[in-house]
Amino acid sequence: MQLAQLGELGLIRRLEAALQGQVAGRSILGVGDDAAAFPPPHTWVLATTDSLVEGADFHLGQVSWADLGWKSLAVNLSDIAAMGGVPQYALVALCLPASVEVSAVDALYQGMLEAARSFGVTIVGGDLSASTQVVITVTLLGSQPEGWDGYDGLMRRDGAQPGQQVAVTGALGASAAGLRMLTRGERFDAETEALLRRFHFRPLPRIAEGQTLLRAGVRCAIDVSDGLLRDLGHLGHASGVDVVIQADLLPVSEAVRRAYPQGWRELALAGGEDFELLCAAPSTALERARRQMDTPLTVIGHVTGPGSGRITVLDAESREFHLESAGWDHFRS
Amino acid sequence: MQLAQLGELGLIRRLEAALQGQVAGRSILGVGDDAAAFPPPHTWVLATTDSLVEGADFHLGQVSWADLGWKSLAVNLSDIAAMGGVPQYALVALCLPASVEVSAVDALYQGMLEAARSFGVTIVGGDLSASTQVVITVTLLGSQPEGWDGYDGLMRRDGAQPGQQVAVTGALGASAAGLRMLTRGERFDAETEALLRRFHFRPLPRIAEGQTLLRAGVRCAIDVSDGLLRDLGHLGHASGVDVVIQADLLPVSEAVRRAYPQGWRELALAGGEDFELLCAAPSTALERARRQMDTPLTVIGHVTGPGSGRITVLDAESREFHLESAGWDHFRS
Repeated sequence: MQLAQLGELGLIRRLEAALQGQVAGRSILGVGDDAAAFPPPHTWVLATTDSLVEGADFHLGQVSWADLGWKSLAVNLSDIAAMGGVPQYALVALCLPASVEVSAVDALYQGMLEAARSFGVTIVGGDLSASTQVVITVTLLGSQPEGWDGYDGLMRRDGAQPGQQVAVTGALGASAAGLRMLTRGERFDAETEALLRRFHFRPLPRIAEGQTLLRAGVRCAIDVSDGLLRDLGHLGHASGVDVVIQADLLPVSEAVRRAYPQGWRELALAGGEDFELLCAAPSTALERARRQMDTPLTVIGHVTGPGSGRITVLDAESREFHLESAGWDHFRS
Repeated sequence: MQLAQLGELGLIRRLEAALQGQVAGRSILGVGDDAAAFPPPHTWVLATTDSLVEGADFHLGQVSWADLGWKSLAVNLSDIAAMGGVPQYALVALCLPASVEVSAVDALYQGMLEAARSFGVTIVGGDLSASTQVVITVTLLGSQPEGWDGYDGLMRRDGAQPGQQVAVTGALGASAAGLRMLTRGERFDAETEALLRRFHFRPLPRIAEGQTLLRAGVRCAIDVSDGLLRDLGHLGHASGVDVVIQADLLPVSEAVRRAYPQGWRELALAGGEDFELLCAAPSTALERARRQMDTPLTVIGHVTGPGSGRITVLDAESREFHLESAGWDHFRS
């Protein structure tokens, strides 16, 4: 059955039923009214919004609806992680063609609810519209972790200081490697293919790691969504500093090096959607954080001095490394 | 200049500059970081999201970008009004084709900021994506009015009781009349045309009226966005009651009656986007509210008894009035 047969009201009732279980016994007003309502956090409110757009961010032939649901929440979770925050409530605005199958929307919500449950989020509201292109916009609200409050209890983009080290969680380039494999139709062994697909479609937001970094004393972070160089550029620009990174220090998984023996360095530098956390902090804070988390935290460079956000990449022989593409821009082709 | 030339980063910098003035001197973290951050309200948080989609909700040839900006915020303000709430912070997710002119985005934000200033809202964050279709998704956060808190300090859809009166603020059908005029290319005198355009493109959310209704003791309301009958159906369904309304009591402006002498009753019953508040309450509460607001508050019917949300419309001779269309469904054509 397509949405055109079920109708808007039918779909609303169906989604209300799917979301009902989440709020049972909790004192909040969830889906089904003009607005959602819930108790305020004891800290500042964190709020972020992000859209996934068919044709730009995904292609329906490549991604399952469940993965799309997971990812639409994950990209927002990653923004809360980059602030060191605790995610709490989500609102979902769906734009769907009337020809979409009802079962596809069910799967989309299953994926979204899986991500929501995994990270303690309740989906409290939303909106449905008919469109020619699938657009999924999630707004995610959160709080600061217990014991933190206000402007100083956040990791911001503008906090990098000359002399600080620059570090990144996890590994880079795997999501972009997955996208490259799908776009070019390349084949690898089954395990590598599954891994790369998973990195691209089921990114793991670094929620716990963000809070650990904050508690360890890190005050400057951004998530890697547009690509390492571009996001480091945002951080440098906001902080008014320049940064040098060393290409041979970049953490890149074995699967990515194996699949792209020539291209992995470029994937790690310019590939988007890693959703790792990139931070600048004194080495003591990074040391403290490293002791408190299982996820790798790799120093890849340092803040050189005041500047306009210029990022220099050096190779193993300290020569400047040049890159053809510097990351993702939504409006330039 | 088109967005394709300016690029995403250029547009972000431009919007950051446009939004900067709003937050000067306030202790919040606005646009420019991974998430916005601001102090929590002293009450429950109210949250709503709503998209305007090109081709479904508007046509670029008909509406100015500034009006589109105003309306994208207004439709969300109306949802906060329907809860009796106070709007505070907005996040804006924009999906735009790369061919859109930069000046169009400037105008869009001017209209949005005009609505924001008019109703005390600060735009604290957003997201930009490239798309083939313009989609504007606003998420609006608010609080309960001073002196109110928690589940009982809200107007909800599910609070209607048998015997209560049903009333509506302002006048109905004017937005739909404007849309009909534009769609059919009909011409009227200049004043009527200007009025109908304004009703359709610059709706006035009933923020103050919503708070007045709440303070006066009203606990059940919804805003008229899908059309009176359909929204009253939502309210009746959520409350488990049936409702009778009298067509000759419907408040309809002179301009609409003049422009559509045959069709105004249908426009008032089924036309969407009036953004008036529709409520069910004891007559004493409505009396109290009426004394405290300048906006008309018209009783149009009453809650008959328990039921499944059946709405009966009676004409002046108490005969049942039948309508061809019962309001807007996004997925049915």
